[in-house]
Amino acid sequence: MQTKNLKMAQRFSAEKMQKLNLFETANFFTDIYCLEPGQEQKIHAHQGADKIYVVLEGTGRFHLGGEEADCSENEVVFAPAEVEHGVRNASPARLVLLVTMAPNPNFK
Amino acid sequence: MQTKNLKMAQRFSAEKMQKLNLFETANFFTDIYCLEPGQEQKIHAHQGADKIYVVLEGTGRFHLGGEEADCSENEVVFAPAEVEHGVRNASPARLVLLVTMAPNPNFK
Repeated sequence: MQTKNLKMAQRFSAEKMQKLNLFETANFFTDIYCLEPGQEQKIHAHQGADKIYVVLEGTGRFHLGGEEADCSENEVVFAPAEVEHGVRNASPARLVLLVTMAPNPNFK
Repeated sequence: MQTKNLKMAQRFSAEKMQKLNLFETANFFTDIYCLEPGQEQKIHAHQGADKIYVVLEGTGRFHLGGEEADCSENEVVFAPAEVEHGVRNASPARLVLLVTMAPNPNFK
C-alpha cells in the first residue's frame, strides 16, 4: 500500500520554500510546501488546472485574484484555473501547506 | 476568496458515513468523510480517476488492491485508478478523512 506521512515528509530550507511531492500521476499532484517566515510562492496562474491549499500548520497570507487573506491551520483555499494566486509566510512561525493540483501540469 | 474550514465542515450521522464536499470542478473533488466507529466506505474502484485519502483524525482500516492496513492521523493513502479500495472505521473513535479525487467522476 502506498502511504506517506505528512510530518515525516516535511523539509525546511533557509534558502527558499521547499516543495515535497507525496504522490503524482497525470491526473494530479499532491505536495507539501514548507515555508520559513518570510518565504513565499510568487503570484502565478495555471491554464486549465485547479489548485487546493490546506493549511496544516501556521498561517499563510494568501493572494487570490487580487484579494488577500490570512488563513490558518485547518483552512482550505481554492485557487481555480486561470486565477492568479500565491502565498507568503508573513507570520513569525513556520508554515506547512498540503497542495493538490489537478490535472498535473508537470507530468511528462 | 473561496475558503472552507476542515473542522467546521464535519458532520457525523449514526446512520452512515457522511461525505461533505468542500470544492469541486470537472478536474477534481475534495470531500471530508466522517465515519463513526463501525462505519465504512465499501470496496470499489474508479476507471481513470485517482484518489488520495488524508487521515485528519482517528484511525482507518484501509483496503487497497487486496492489502489491508491501519492508517492514522497525518498518514496519506494513494488509491490509483482501477485499483480496488475502501476504508472502515474499525476503531472505537471517530474517523475523519480528507478525500481528493481527480478527475471528478461525479461532475456534470
